[in-house]
Amino acid sequence: MISVLIDKIKEKNAPVVVGLDPMIDYIPKKMVDDAITEQFGALEAAGEAIWKFNKEIVDATYDLIPAVKPQIAMYEQFGIPGLIAFDKTVKYCKEKGLVVIGDVKRGDIGSTSAAYANGHIGAVTIGDTEVSAFDEDMVTVNPYLGTDGVKPFVDACNEYDKGIFVLVKTSNPSSGEFQDQMIDGHPLYELVADKVNEWGMDSMDGEYSNVGAVVGATYPEMGAFLREKMPNTYILVPGYGAQGGTADTLRPYFNEDGLGAIVNSSRGIICAYKQDKYKQFGDSKFYEASRQAVVDMIEDINSIF
Amino acid sequence: MISVLIDKIKEKNAPVVVGLDPMIDYIPKKMVDDAITEQFGALEAAGEAIWKFNKEIVDATYDLIPAVKPQIAMYEQFGIPGLIAFDKTVKYCKEKGLVVIGDVKRGDIGSTSAAYANGHIGAVTIGDTEVSAFDEDMVTVNPYLGTDGVKPFVDACNEYDKGIFVLVKTSNPSSGEFQDQMIDGHPLYELVADKVNEWGMDSMDGEYSNVGAVVGATYPEMGAFLREKMPNTYILVPGYGAQGGTADTLRPYFNEDGLGAIVNSSRGIICAYKQDKYKQFGDSKFYEASRQAVVDMIEDINSIF
Repeated sequence: MISVLIDKIKEKNAPVVVGLDPMIDYIPKKMVDDAITEQFGALEAAGEAIWKFNKEIVDATYDLIPAVKPQIAMYEQFGIPGLIAFDKTVKYCKEKGLVVIGDVKRGDIGSTSAAYANGHIGAVTIGDTEVSAFDEDMVTVNPYLGTDGVKPFVDACNEYDKGIFVLVKTSNPSSGEFQDQMIDGHPLYELVADKVNEWGMDSMDGEYSNVGAVVGATYPEMGAFLREKMPNTYILVPGYGAQGGTADTLRPYFNEDGLGAIVNSSRGIICAYKQDKYKQFGDSKFYEASRQAVVDMIEDINSIF
Repeated sequence: MISVLIDKIKEKNAPVVVGLDPMIDYIPKKMVDDAITEQFGALEAAGEAIWKFNKEIVDATYDLIPAVKPQIAMYEQFGIPGLIAFDKTVKYCKEKGLVVIGDVKRGDIGSTSAAYANGHIGAVTIGDTEVSAFDEDMVTVNPYLGTDGVKPFVDACNEYDKGIFVLVKTSNPSSGEFQDQMIDGHPLYELVADKVNEWGMDSMDGEYSNVGAVVGATYPEMGAFLREKMPNTYILVPGYGAQGGTADTLRPYFNEDGLGAIVNSSRGIICAYKQDKYKQFGDSKFYEASRQAVVDMIEDINSIF
């Protein structure tokens, strides 16, 4: 799967991913109000508003970008109707030719991790029927439980040609509390990076492995170090834009050839119409603001090469 | 919420929780086949079979036990229909007076963790309506992202009188890969335990805090150590039975008064009818096998006091 993502990044000349993380506040008020009027329940209204909002953004940007990253928490908070919106979004984005990275950060013990892997990037068997439920192309994985929690995801990568990104160093302020702790002179995230290399050896797909890593844009020195430490690992970089990461801090996450990393922006794209810079589009053309924000982001990221 | 759980444990004299983690293989074949015949899609059939299976087990055991712990991965693997079965199971168990511990192991950065917390143990607001989606009583939480990933769950505990169990030392074979790594002479899980104490101080509910810990039954020395280290923390203990933990290794997880821990069994209860010991119940009375297995488990656990 990583080779598919790389081909799309090259084709669009855009090492970026749009994070589809719709908070209710991000959606134009009229869209939410209309959904409340049309739907019987509040959760159903939220699901419908999110789905319509996503669809407009995807329609306005899909030709520019290789991938999207829906954050499942933003859907799961609205229960079943929210998850139906997640499911529709994943399937619609795949129809549009986008690589879908489910930001699910799952991770559990062996058979339970296998269930997550089956449901998100594999398949389940019921009677004589094999079915893929959510069927994202790639997902994010939490490594705290160790190899037997991650291995089922790697197995699914091999069986179904999918990919994962393992949390190595996250973008949030307190990520260092555990991740930066020193073990025999090396931070915990480095130990996780060693494991990412090891797991990735079992799922190579061209020059890179299907086992990628999440390294936040907010920690560029660690990005530089981890880039070198994991030569065959694609890095998913959250934290650009709203969280404070800027293009000039992103260079170290990439290899010489401009590959090796893909930068996520969520709020900066899907909520662009609320920024002064894009306010001329107005609430009703929020998706055109998103398109312009994608154009600007691609130009900004490509300026570092 | 922890005080509610403790009251129920005392009332039933049963420091146990039944893990509702239904694999398709655990469900009697006839139930699965019937669901396949009745339902249009394979995922819908899985959801229906799981729900019916769970309901029988809950009906046969609810008077004996204080709590259940549905493992969401086992539902999520079947997509939306699976999650509908999860949702129905949670709501039904609450109707039956059980404390529901959603084994979701969620954890993310601040606003995203807040979305998970809102969806599972809090509420969301859409227009003028506040709604709780999955509405479990307690959930398990992954701490790898640090305080700002856990804090939103603690806030929800306080706002909605709920509880969490933070993964400290998990029961799986490779849990030590990261969790046992030594930091200044102390393993990582001890550092997490210190944080559990700290987080718990913000959400005390009687003698114990609403911030519990997961410590696997398969590591009893660490259980003893962590019991002492976290005096106000309830410990959720997975790994009894099928994973290899036995009653005589469980004593150290409890305080002198017999409180302080709750022991989970999943396969050992819900799949009891497949064991030689309970095979006299047959496939059709699988739920009576589960009831007997609960009776035996409670007796076994209580024998240590």
